Amino acid sequence: MSLPRTATTFAPPVMEAYRWRQGVEFTDEHPLINVSQAAPVDPPPEALRQHIAEVALHVPEAHLYGPVFGMSELRAEVAAQFSAAYGGKISDTQVAITSGCNQAFCAAMMSLAGEGDEVILPTPWYFNHKMWLDMQGIKTVALSTGADLLPDPEIAEALITEKTRAVVLVTPNNPGGVEYSAELVRAFADLAARRDLQLIVDETYRDFDSRTGAPHALFENPDWADHLIQLYSFSKAYRLTGHRVGAMIASEARLSEVEKFLDTVTICPNQLGQHAALWGMRNLGQWLAGERAEILDRRAAITDHMPLIADQGWQVMGVGAYFAYLRHPFDMASDDLARALVQKAHVLTLPGTMFNPENSQEGRQQMRIAFANVDRQGIEALFHRLKSFEI
Amino acid sequence: MSLPRTATTFAPPVMEAYRWRQGVEFTDEHPLINVSQAAPVDPPPEALRQHIAEVALHVPEAHLYGPVFGMSELRAEVAAQFSAAYGGKISDTQVAITSGCNQAFCAAMMSLAGEGDEVILPTPWYFNHKMWLDMQGIKTVALSTGADLLPDPEIAEALITEKTRAVVLVTPNNPGGVEYSAELVRAFADLAARRDLQLIVDETYRDFDSRTGAPHALFENPDWADHLIQLYSFSKAYRLTGHRVGAMIASEARLSEVEKFLDTVTICPNQLGQHAALWGMRNLGQWLAGERAEILDRRAAITDHMPLIADQGWQVMGVGAYFAYLRHPFDMASDDLARALVQKAHVLTLPGTMFNPENSQEGRQQMRIAFANVDRQGIEALFHRLKSFEI
Repeated sequence: MSLPRTATTFAPPVMEAYRWRQGVEFTDEHPLINVSQAAPVDPPPEALRQHIAEVALHVPEAHLYGPVFGMSELRAEVAAQFSAAYGGKISDTQVAITSGCNQAFCAAMMSLAGEGDEVILPTPWYFNHKMWLDMQGIKTVALSTGADLLPDPEIAEALITEKTRAVVLVTPNNPGGVEYSAELVRAFADLAARRDLQLIVDETYRDFDSRTGAPHALFENPDWADHLIQLYSFSKAYRLTGHRVGAMIASEARLSEVEKFLDTVTICPNQLGQHAALWGMRNLGQWLAGERAEILDRRAAITDHMPLIADQGWQVMGVGAYFAYLRHPFDMASDDLARALVQKAHVLTLPGTMFNPENSQEGRQQMRIAFANVDRQGIEALFHRLKSFEI
Repeated sequence: MSLPRTATTFAPPVMEAYRWRQGVEFTDEHPLINVSQAAPVDPPPEALRQHIAEVALHVPEAHLYGPVFGMSELRAEVAAQFSAAYGGKISDTQVAITSGCNQAFCAAMMSLAGEGDEVILPTPWYFNHKMWLDMQGIKTVALSTGADLLPDPEIAEALITEKTRAVVLVTPNNPGGVEYSAELVRAFADLAARRDLQLIVDETYRDFDSRTGAPHALFENPDWADHLIQLYSFSKAYRLTGHRVGAMIASEARLSEVEKFLDTVTICPNQLGQHAALWGMRNLGQWLAGERAEILDRRAAITDHMPLIADQGWQVMGVGAYFAYLRHPFDMASDDLARALVQKAHVLTLPGTMFNPENSQEGRQQMRIAFANVDRQGIEALFHRLKSFEI
C-alpha cells in the first residue's frame, strides 16, 4: 500500500502564511504590509485589457480548444524574440506554451525522471519545485549555496549519482534575489553536457534582471537542445498572473514527450491568456522597460534602507528580481519569527524554512521579502517596522 | 534508472488521428467529415462573450492570481446548483474549481493513489484517464463491459485487491455514449463504501443526458463525501473548451490534499474562464436546454440512420452524450479501418483500439463517432459514406 502522491509533500506555503493573519487585527494606522507573495497587484495596462476584450468578442476560436502546445503565432513569437535576445537559433517547434511556468516545470520533470530518480536543486529553493518532485517520487538533492547564495558547479558535480537526471537553476533567483552570471550558468551547462544531464533554467523573473543584454549565452551553442530546458513566464512581465501562461523551450524530441503530460492534464493552455501574452510581446516592450525601471528602483530602496536595520544585525544575502533575501538576527527559527512579525509588526513575510530542506539549519536565519508590490514609501515603512520590532 | 514518467504512456490519440489526414486530398465535393473530437466548434453565445469582455475591461482582479480552489462565488454557485439538482447537501468548501475536468481527474488520483496502487476503469475507457494513471505508476485494471457497455459491480468487485484505491465511472460515457442508471451508479457507490474505496463519477457530459432529473442519488446520502468524488466540466455546456474550467466535488479533507497538486501545477484556474462559467451557470439555463435538445436530435438522427448501414453489418453499441459507439463489420482492426476511412471515405473517427488495453481484442471491432459537431444533414452524409465504403 503506497502513500497517495499528495501525501508525500507539504501544504502550500503561501496559504499557510495567509492563515497566520487569522486573529490579528490590522488597523488603518498600522495596516498589514504584505511582502509574502511574488505577484503584481495591479491589472495589465488598459490597452492590453482592451485587446483581450476585443478577442473575446470577435475571435470565435479564442473560446475553443487550441493546440496542446499553444497558438502557433505565440510559439513563433517566443522563438523569434528569444533567438534575437539570446543570439541563438530557436525554432517555433522547440517552444511549448503552458498553463503557467509552474506547469512548464512539472512537464519538464515528467519528461526526464521517474520514481527514485534524483534532481539537484540549489537551496534556498522555490517550494513548488520541491513539492512536484516529492509528489512524483523524485528525490530532491539539495545543493547548499552558502552566504552568497550562488550554487557551485563543483559541489553540484559531487552530488551527481547514476540516478541524477537534472540540475535546476532559477535566475534571477526565487527566493534568493541573486542574478547568476552568464559564466556560472555556462559552468552548469558544461556540467550537464559532460555528465549527460538536463539543465533547467527557469527565468520567470528575467524581465526584471538588473543587467542589460542576454543573461546567458547557452543558445549560441547550436546543440543547446541536447541538454537545456529553458522556462519562462508571461505572468510577471505583463501582469497576467490570473491568465496562467508560461513557456518551455526544449528539443522537439522532449516536447513530444511533454505533449503527453500537457494533453492529459489541461488539453491546451487557455486561449485568451495566450492572445494576451502575444499582444504583450508585440506591443508592450516599452511599457515593460518602465516596469523594470520601477522594480529596480524598489530594489534600490531596499539597499538604501538596509542601514536602518543593520544595527539590529539584519543582513542582505541577495536582492534582485522581486525579492530581498535577508539574514535575521534573532535566536529563533524563521517560521516562528515570521508569525511574530505578523502579530507584532503586521508584516507578512515568508520564512527561510519554507525554502529549505526540512530540519536543515540554513533556513532558520533567513527571511524572504517579496518587495515588488510595495513602493518606496512602503519599503521605508517596512524597514521602520523591522527596526522597532522586538521579540 | 527509471523510465521518465511520460515514457510509460502512449502519445495523445487525438493528435495521432489528426496526422492520418496528412497526404489525403479533401475536396469541396467530398470534404472531410470530422467526427473524431468531442468539442463544440461554435463559440459561446454573444451575451456570454460580451460578459467576458466586460470583465476583462472592468474587473482588475480578473487578471491576477486568485484562490487555488477558484473564485468563491463560483464554488458557491456549483455547491448550490448541484445541491438542488441532486437533492443533497454540498457545501462550497467541498467544491474546487480546476483548469478543466482532465485536471480534476488528475488531482483526484494524486490524492488517493501512489506508485503501484490500482484503479479500476471500465472499458472502453477515456484515454486521458489511462494516460494519467500510466504516468503516475498507478496500475489501470480494466473492467470489461461486454455488448451493452455497462460495467458490472460484481465483476468489478472480483477485481479488487488490497492495492485498489478507486473505481472510475464516466456517465454519460465517453467513448461509449451509454447513460448509467441511477441504480447502477448506486451499486458502485455501495461497493466503494463496502470495500472502502473512492468512487469517481465523471459527469462531463451531464448536461446532454437524455433523461430528466438527477442522474444519480448519491448526494442524498449525508455521508456521500466519505467515498464519492464528483467531476464536472463547464467546457461543453457553455462552449468554453478554450477556457479550461472544470470542477471537483469532494470532502474537505480530500480537497486539502488536492490543493497541493493544484497549487504546484497551475497555482489557480484562469480567472476569465471562471467568470464565464459563473455567468453561464447563472444566465444560460434556458439556452443550455436548447443546446441539449439539439444534441438529442442529433442523437436521434444517428438512430434514424442506422438502418442504412445495418445491412453492411454495422451495429450500435451505445449512443448518447456526444457519442455513438459502433461495432464495425470488417475483418480488420479498428485503427487500420480508421485510417482507411480517412483515405477512402474522408471520414475521421477514433478507433476502439484507442479506448481499450493494448493488444486486447475488444477495441478491434469498435469505432467512436463524436457526432456533436455534425448536424442532421451531416449525419445523413456520414451514413451514406459509411454505407458505400469498401475496404
